[in-house]
Amino acid sequence: MNRKMVLFTLGQLLIIEAILLLLPAGVSFYYSENTVWHFLFTAALAGTIGSLLMLIFRKRSNVIYAKEGFAIVALAWVLMSAVGALPFCISGEIPSYIDAFFETVSGFTTTGASIIPNVEKLSRGILFWRSFTHWIGGMGVLVFVMAVLPSVSNRSIHIIRAEMPGPIIGKLVPRAKDTAKILYLIYIGLTVVEAVMLMAGGMPKFDSVIHTFGTAGTGGFGIKADSIAGYSPYCQWVITAFMFLFGLNFNLYFLLLVRRFKSFFKNTELWVYLGITLASMGIIAWNIHSIYGNVADSVRNSAFQVTTVMSTTGYATCDFDMWPALSKAILLILMFMGSCAGSTAGGLKISRVIILFKLCRNELKHMMNPKSVNAVRYDGKQVDSSVLKNTGNYFVIYILCFIAIFLLLSADPYPATTAFSPMETNFAATTACFNNIGPGFGAVGPMFNYSGYSVFSKLLLSFAMLLGRLELFPMLLLFSHRLWRKK
Amino acid sequence: MNRKMVLFTLGQLLIIEAILLLLPAGVSFYYSENTVWHFLFTAALAGTIGSLLMLIFRKRSNVIYAKEGFAIVALAWVLMSAVGALPFCISGEIPSYIDAFFETVSGFTTTGASIIPNVEKLSRGILFWRSFTHWIGGMGVLVFVMAVLPSVSNRSIHIIRAEMPGPIIGKLVPRAKDTAKILYLIYIGLTVVEAVMLMAGGMPKFDSVIHTFGTAGTGGFGIKADSIAGYSPYCQWVITAFMFLFGLNFNLYFLLLVRRFKSFFKNTELWVYLGITLASMGIIAWNIHSIYGNVADSVRNSAFQVTTVMSTTGYATCDFDMWPALSKAILLILMFMGSCAGSTAGGLKISRVIILFKLCRNELKHMMNPKSVNAVRYDGKQVDSSVLKNTGNYFVIYILCFIAIFLLLSADPYPATTAFSPMETNFAATTACFNNIGPGFGAVGPMFNYSGYSVFSKLLLSFAMLLGRLELFPMLLLFSHRLWRKK
Repeated sequence: MNRKMVLFTLGQLLIIEAILLLLPAGVSFYYSENTVWHFLFTAALAGTIGSLLMLIFRKRSNVIYAKEGFAIVALAWVLMSAVGALPFCISGEIPSYIDAFFETVSGFTTTGASIIPNVEKLSRGILFWRSFTHWIGGMGVLVFVMAVLPSVSNRSIHIIRAEMPGPIIGKLVPRAKDTAKILYLIYIGLTVVEAVMLMAGGMPKFDSVIHTFGTAGTGGFGIKADSIAGYSPYCQWVITAFMFLFGLNFNLYFLLLVRRFKSFFKNTELWVYLGITLASMGIIAWNIHSIYGNVADSVRNSAFQVTTVMSTTGYATCDFDMWPALSKAILLILMFMGSCAGSTAGGLKISRVIILFKLCRNELKHMMNPKSVNAVRYDGKQVDSSVLKNTGNYFVIYILCFIAIFLLLSADPYPATTAFSPMETNFAATTACFNNIGPGFGAVGPMFNYSGYSVFSKLLLSFAMLLGRLELFPMLLLFSHRLWRKK
Repeated sequence: MNRKMVLFTLGQLLIIEAILLLLPAGVSFYYSENTVWHFLFTAALAGTIGSLLMLIFRKRSNVIYAKEGFAIVALAWVLMSAVGALPFCISGEIPSYIDAFFETVSGFTTTGASIIPNVEKLSRGILFWRSFTHWIGGMGVLVFVMAVLPSVSNRSIHIIRAEMPGPIIGKLVPRAKDTAKILYLIYIGLTVVEAVMLMAGGMPKFDSVIHTFGTAGTGGFGIKADSIAGYSPYCQWVITAFMFLFGLNFNLYFLLLVRRFKSFFKNTELWVYLGITLASMGIIAWNIHSIYGNVADSVRNSAFQVTTVMSTTGYATCDFDMWPALSKAILLILMFMGSCAGSTAGGLKISRVIILFKLCRNELKHMMNPKSVNAVRYDGKQVDSSVLKNTGNYFVIYILCFIAIFLLLSADPYPATTAFSPMETNFAATTACFNNIGPGFGAVGPMFNYSGYSVFSKLLLSFAMLLGRLELFPMLLLFSHRLWRKK
């Protein structure tokens, strides 16, 4: 591995983080909060270490292969979380460093799982930083880096391959740097529109910004104990709409920008995403109708919870853990499915699920007529057999990772809350962290938090969040001795 | 499809079933029970329909392809269950035909899931037939048929392919008919040894035969409300040992018979099976030690429950639903794993799990060095890429089938037993039926039964049992219009 290059890039990223930390420092200053110093100290620390790394490893070779790409991505998320956790800890608002680390990983991975029992007690600056990590994490720290820093020819491709969610990356423009810039502009544009629409609906400015960060990154950190339930139906619908929009493949927005409407409307994933959303909304609204008594509330709650789970955001307007078994089963399956590839959402991604279904159909056809050769088509094009194979293998690794985390989590004797099944809680916690959703069912349902888990489990779940967010490989390869071998 | 051939074979099978029904009739006669007439009537009915089918379709073509093989296997299990359910229903001991059908499917698929609230009230003849279906189902009705009926050249291969569990069928002898005969003799041999050993331990003769049937088929129907808990530790250990033995690949016994010890000891699946069994036993025994207070009971209960779940038998000596989360999580994972390919167990099979792990490792290596080509080795031989692909695809279809059944089952509002989570119960019921185990967790735990489910759910779970037992494809292809198309 080209260690110098990896460490040099990590240094660059720390400097970026130092700059980003000035924003919450400004918020703290504006609200005259003491935390301004904690942010400034952390920023100075990050800046110093970053500068030193860049200085020491300035004589690097720029040659970089797949493994360097994976290493940079994995280490960057871990390092930035480790540093980003400091303000929580120093300020004393999250006294334990492990808890603060969990919270920051949850932020950068846009999961939204929290260990904070009472979020309303936190200061403004801390709340801002907590949600801002969602926004930073959303499009990926490294896409951000590429849009700002000069990119090195081969380098960007590998980083993008390791970073971008989903199996199919429609190359919008020839250079990775330009792609990143465009995606980033779309991201900022949508963010501004959502914040303005929330403010227009009477949501306080601070709340609007916070919730927009959470929506854009499909994260889900809020500032109220009841998440979004206390805001007006208008605000809930705005957030519902934007959770759906941030779950769309960002390439689709680009297609709209360049007026390639035909390609836009021919996109399979778009229609499947829309279809699954509407079908789930309809079934759940019907299923929960007896609880809410009227159509408006049933539809609103159903729509909000379906989009929050599919986009893997994790806001809530009601305790969906109390819903009937059918609604819960649908939500559980949507948790694994996630939204479109190339969005800020987690989970398996719809395009993968489509390809998996096509793969099954193909296999059944083949079983019946062993001599027949059946091509799989997607978006009107024949799918390469290597894509089919990779998608199938990804799914196998995905499930095995899930099982391993669930098993290890079960080894931790979770404090028995008699009302909930420990097995269901552990299963839900694994699902909600691995797929970057946040709240699950049982004792980690939308009305509860992760504070009951031990230090070991919190670190395990932090790993699960990173594993899911980075699409498995970067984190898994950290364990390979081949990665660390010197060239 | 060659419909005549399919219907002719189904006719043959009904005649076999008619003959098999004479055995429970004899038992009923011996105990002077009224049910003798119900068995004789069913036998006469099956014999008549079978003869008619054979007569009508005697002018068949013997040409048969993969799809005919799948159709015969799938339809045979459904038809034999439909007929085998009659004695339960006619005798009034299971008044509802749907319930009787569920029970018979559960018997023939060697699942052991029951809808009978109080099994101790049933008559001897009915109890015998119920467990005898396990024994018949165990090695597969069609292996039985091939050992008895003259086989048609190409035919047997396709039926074996559709019937035999596991991805790798070590061809023991050139002709399928002879293979079936040898497997069948091993099966009978083990059955006799177990029954004798149980009797030697003081278990009543009737009980010994019943429990041997349940062990041999890895089924799990018992005759006591507390399953095996009331019998002596010696008997529990004997059943534990035989559940393990019936979970072994039967080809291994053949290797022992022909004194190919080297091949026997080189078998990867054997060692992995043994390793997983012992490791799970050890961890669970340690985990439940505080419940039982002494090593002997902890180890015995752990060993029994681990082998019952891995071999997908479903007997129980204690309520493992009350165990700590770690033990339950291990059992849940073992439920999916099952035992060796080529055994009477259900589940994914160990050899598949090994190949899936190797596939993952290979994929990770490939990720790191995209240009490298890594061969996967199993049992000292290079695994063909088509085996890797098929195993991966099988796993994908397996998980998608599981999700579909779980979702449909959740649509049925299961009568709320406040003590258990409906989601956990539905998940466990799907797991336990699809993997042919029987008891699960929650309201379908080892101390409960499936009587609470609706007619729809019982039929759905019957389908799940058949789907799992026949390794997915035969049942799935029944839904394909291509299967039914005339040549």
